[in-house]
Amino acid sequence: MRHNLIEPGDNEDITKERRGASFSVGKMAAFIYGGEDKLRRRHEILKFVESQEDFQDPIPPEFMSREERVENNARKIVAMTNKIAFIDQSDIFEEGLFFQSLVMGRDFHAMSLHYGMFIPTIQGQADDDQLDYWLPLAVTRGIIGTYAQTELGHGTNISRLETTATYDRETEEFVLHTPSVSATKWWSGGLGKSSNYAIIPAQLIIDGSNKGLHMFIAQLRDLDTHMPLPGITIGDIGPKMGIPGIDNGFLIFNNYRIPRKNMFMRYSKVLSNGEYIAPKHSKLRYGTMVFVRSIMVRDQAMQLAAAVTIAIRYSAIRRQGEWKPGSKEVQILDYRTQQYRILPYLAQSFVFLFAATEVKDLYMRVTKQLSDGITELVQELHILSSGFKSVVTWEVAKGIEQCRLACGGHGYSHASGLPEIYSFAVAGCTYEGENIVMLLQVARFLMKTVKEIRSSNAHLEEIAKYLLSNRKYRSNFRMWQTVKYEDLIEDFEQAARNQIYFTFDYLQQLQKDNLSLEEAWNCASVELCQASRLHIICFMAKSYFSKIAQCTEPEIARILNLIGKLYSLHTISSHCYSFRKADYMSDEQMKNVKCGIYEILGNLRPDAVAIVDSFDFSDRELHSVLGRRDGNVYGAMLEWAKHSELNKTEVLSTFEKFLGPMMESSRSKI
Amino acid sequence: MRHNLIEPGDNEDITKERRGASFSVGKMAAFIYGGEDKLRRRHEILKFVESQEDFQDPIPPEFMSREERVENNARKIVAMTNKIAFIDQSDIFEEGLFFQSLVMGRDFHAMSLHYGMFIPTIQGQADDDQLDYWLPLAVTRGIIGTYAQTELGHGTNISRLETTATYDRETEEFVLHTPSVSATKWWSGGLGKSSNYAIIPAQLIIDGSNKGLHMFIAQLRDLDTHMPLPGITIGDIGPKMGIPGIDNGFLIFNNYRIPRKNMFMRYSKVLSNGEYIAPKHSKLRYGTMVFVRSIMVRDQAMQLAAAVTIAIRYSAIRRQGEWKPGSKEVQILDYRTQQYRILPYLAQSFVFLFAATEVKDLYMRVTKQLSDGITELVQELHILSSGFKSVVTWEVAKGIEQCRLACGGHGYSHASGLPEIYSFAVAGCTYEGENIVMLLQVARFLMKTVKEIRSSNAHLEEIAKYLLSNRKYRSNFRMWQTVKYEDLIEDFEQAARNQIYFTFDYLQQLQKDNLSLEEAWNCASVELCQASRLHIICFMAKSYFSKIAQCTEPEIARILNLIGKLYSLHTISSHCYSFRKADYMSDEQMKNVKCGIYEILGNLRPDAVAIVDSFDFSDRELHSVLGRRDGNVYGAMLEWAKHSELNKTEVLSTFEKFLGPMMESSRSKI
Repeated sequence: MRHNLIEPGDNEDITKERRGASFSVGKMAAFIYGGEDKLRRRHEILKFVESQEDFQDPIPPEFMSREERVENNARKIVAMTNKIAFIDQSDIFEEGLFFQSLVMGRDFHAMSLHYGMFIPTIQGQADDDQLDYWLPLAVTRGIIGTYAQTELGHGTNISRLETTATYDRETEEFVLHTPSVSATKWWSGGLGKSSNYAIIPAQLIIDGSNKGLHMFIAQLRDLDTHMPLPGITIGDIGPKMGIPGIDNGFLIFNNYRIPRKNMFMRYSKVLSNGEYIAPKHSKLRYGTMVFVRSIMVRDQAMQLAAAVTIAIRYSAIRRQGEWKPGSKEVQILDYRTQQYRILPYLAQSFVFLFAATEVKDLYMRVTKQLSDGITELVQELHILSSGFKSVVTWEVAKGIEQCRLACGGHGYSHASGLPEIYSFAVAGCTYEGENIVMLLQVARFLMKTVKEIRSSNAHLEEIAKYLLSNRKYRSNFRMWQTVKYEDLIEDFEQAARNQIYFTFDYLQQLQKDNLSLEEAWNCASVELCQASRLHIICFMAKSYFSKIAQCTEPEIARILNLIGKLYSLHTISSHCYSFRKADYMSDEQMKNVKCGIYEILGNLRPDAVAIVDSFDFSDRELHSVLGRRDGNVYGAMLEWAKHSELNKTEVLSTFEKFLGPMMESSRSKI
Repeated sequence: MRHNLIEPGDNEDITKERRGASFSVGKMAAFIYGGEDKLRRRHEILKFVESQEDFQDPIPPEFMSREERVENNARKIVAMTNKIAFIDQSDIFEEGLFFQSLVMGRDFHAMSLHYGMFIPTIQGQADDDQLDYWLPLAVTRGIIGTYAQTELGHGTNISRLETTATYDRETEEFVLHTPSVSATKWWSGGLGKSSNYAIIPAQLIIDGSNKGLHMFIAQLRDLDTHMPLPGITIGDIGPKMGIPGIDNGFLIFNNYRIPRKNMFMRYSKVLSNGEYIAPKHSKLRYGTMVFVRSIMVRDQAMQLAAAVTIAIRYSAIRRQGEWKPGSKEVQILDYRTQQYRILPYLAQSFVFLFAATEVKDLYMRVTKQLSDGITELVQELHILSSGFKSVVTWEVAKGIEQCRLACGGHGYSHASGLPEIYSFAVAGCTYEGENIVMLLQVARFLMKTVKEIRSSNAHLEEIAKYLLSNRKYRSNFRMWQTVKYEDLIEDFEQAARNQIYFTFDYLQQLQKDNLSLEEAWNCASVELCQASRLHIICFMAKSYFSKIAQCTEPEIARILNLIGKLYSLHTISSHCYSFRKADYMSDEQMKNVKCGIYEILGNLRPDAVAIVDSFDFSDRELHSVLGRRDGNVYGAMLEWAKHSELNKTEVLSTFEKFLGPMMESSRSKI
């Protein structure tokens, strides 16, 4: 295992940083990834990916047109899934995602939704006969499917989707139809050009009566020619902020017929005579979303870790400004403002990564319990995964963009990798449940809990028990050096309690002022979101501190401790409004929090490069000229730029056509 | 003049919003743009631009490759400058920028730096003989020039640029040379492919002695063939986060010779015998930067206004969720969380726009004074333009991105225009002076001022006089309804004073703790930035309230008043740490600030569409499917998507090459 990333020919400054580290990078990496075996496995997978010719890009993808990129991705995803046996299928959260990110980079591809939504939905919604038919076809890649839920006019509120599936008793068929422009299916990944099948959530109509949203599977394209079938209009939705390599698509049905057996019937059924049999439980199908959100938290944490790695390595080799006239210029990592921009996000990436493990473990436990018919943790999982997804994606987006800005002009170039990381990650604020909607779902749970507590009728979920604890009136915080984890956790808990109870009372007050419940909820919704955030943040702090308590290496524990304190103090300072609420923290304490942050930054500075080295990113995974392991950035930027499509010729046609004649005509007149 | 944007066939919801407005959009627009004449002039320019065939794009530029976009921009900039006579040349700040944005959209082009930096630098640095030679050539477009300052390894700290210009007495030439990879000129707009001349800041070396940075003008490409001249390596630097239509370039000199008269000699001179004559004043050349920053503040405010317009119009036609089961879905603009995301930035766009006018006026006054040899306002202009640029670009970037996120999935599509607005505007945080560096320059001025006040030796600039006022210990704030402008301004001033004096004392304390001045400055730098921000924010609030005091129409004044209060309260809440410092604001007051924000949002909601209509954006200028005047978004998105390069054929070659064989082979085995 590499304990040390130094190699001959590296940039001098970055080598000096590595030589000065106070801890073993190998040990820290093993702690992050859950042991030396896991780390070794990462290196095996990397080696395998690097050895496969058909996994390689002919040129860096950022120089490709959309068409080239879609084609390159299709080529790679077929090659990758051909060799999927290399990966431990039971560890999709870690091995699977890592393998995919090494081959596909930060983009989606023709089969992203095939694996992420199409197959899981078949598994969850098809009855046994349907499973026997569809699952082998899908799993062996005999068809490519996507999941076409969102419409032009409807996203989050799926009960109002407009697409209809009307049962025709005569022919025993459903007629899928798009009744208006706003009902056009829109956004689904792989729908535009790649998929030949899709799962279609649509309103089930029998004899003019709407039975609500049900799931249908429809063939979209001819298996041999891949042409859209009659009654189907389909295409790509055009360029987006990121993810250029996937064909997000639109789909319009014109009275398109599918057999009765293409409605998934695990829960509801339509018999051939048109009789409708309703499901026993109404909420049995959010498993897929929860799964995707759990994966997202880990992936998002890794994106932030990558951005932080790039920013810190670049800040170590970039020199600018001098403190004494005539002296060597300063590494920009030495500026406190630069540390302040980057290191709190380094801390967040650790906290989020460890929290992701906790969500994953909970997901595994719930899945096991559900197979035994136990549902007690479902609510907790739903709340945590929604809340985490929302808090994490937002902080990750902010953090990546700060890292990008901290790299100055070069951060704006695609050479840095940072614009791609940002546009890829920030989409997570919107998909799989828009963040504000998610936070308000968490808030609904919190307000219900407070109501139960107030009515002394509380049966509390584990994650909400702290709401019952006695109020603490004043924080004990004095100095960052001496503060204990337990004190910090008490601060987080009390700030959350203050915000949550305040919001509950505010809701009550608004109703007393003659607002309806819905109006009051709406008026208080910004505070409700804040209550949810503090609840989640509090959970994350606890989870982090309990995780690092397992660390047995003093040199590693020291760093993890500094990171935990930086995370805590920075979070308190970012939520000053809530932590000073009811004067829980005083002006003096808040000042000590701020000054504490600055001092911790100084303490972490000497190990900053080694800490990000511990994320164990290869140059392949990082895909950033600025973040290269060897620190030899400037020469590599020049080489990178030579790929520019504008550099294919010395003189562009713009000279002959426009600029040349303009200049010549002017000069001839002088 | 259009007082009302309603037309037959518009989306019903947006029409209803417009019918319900409490004020005349025409009057508000006239107030924003400085009178009905100015507004009429905007409409004339729009009509002219729309009437010129060669100003039109063949397809929306977001569907073009970089090469197509660069070519389209070159074509348009020639056409545009051919017809520049249509524009009042004395009003470059408003007419000029408006004209350019209508023709060129949100992108730079082959001649951005020719007009923005090349010509102004000639005007500022050339002596009279040089002016006579170069200015006509440049102004008539006989050559295209750029300004090549930044190097791969050096941006902000220009004193350490590495490129050398060594005087050769024998031939009376300067030898321009790039001594290392990091000395490669990098980033200059139009350098890669379009320009045939550039101004080169380089270290002047005479007889081995470095005389510091001086400005040279160098021919880069042959006038007839446009090929790079011997000794010059030049190219495009590759794709960036935004501005795809400009060829930012790199440039390497290999002992490239230029005549002695190609050094600009207005201030320093090199005689033919190599004798060096130093300039009388050392700081006479930042005029260009200040000019560009002043323009930027206005342009950035307009970008934010555009984003807010898109988000509000879309929120008026988008319906999602229901408050009563079975009722019509809710316009998302009715959600308080949505209002909270967007409306504070609506308020900011007004405040920034009015502040931009103030910077512009100051710039004009300073320019006039300087021509009379008076320099008293130079410092004030430098501080204000640096501080404004920094505060405004950062808030604008945050605001645009919030608006984009508030549009959900569709905000991520280039159809919304928002990814382009963001990537265009956010670059402003970095260029023309990185924001943190700018804030620290403002802080240096503030700390110097406090030192003078403490030593009773203060001769204060106008903008700093409030620092002398008596300390106020407690804010008077009670309720948003009754608070007066003067009270809010007192709050801003006191918060700024508290932050500025606290930071000064913190600096002193750090030095007492045995840090050197440089170390102390570095340790306190985050607080120093915050001090600068509050200083600038305070100035902006004053400037806004003094501007709206001129409004004589009660219905307009009512809205401007609400906007001013929303801006103030939202700013206080965002800077909770500083406003609660020294307990200047209490917990109760901060709560009233927050709840006040929510109530003002409700009060502004009914006029939100009319307020953004008052920005008078045409659909051409806005360039957003989501922000269309008529609100008919969904059908237009479908039409827009048809341009996608992936939709040129029904079946991509990916099917035949990769996906088809994979599926067929699997199906044949089942």
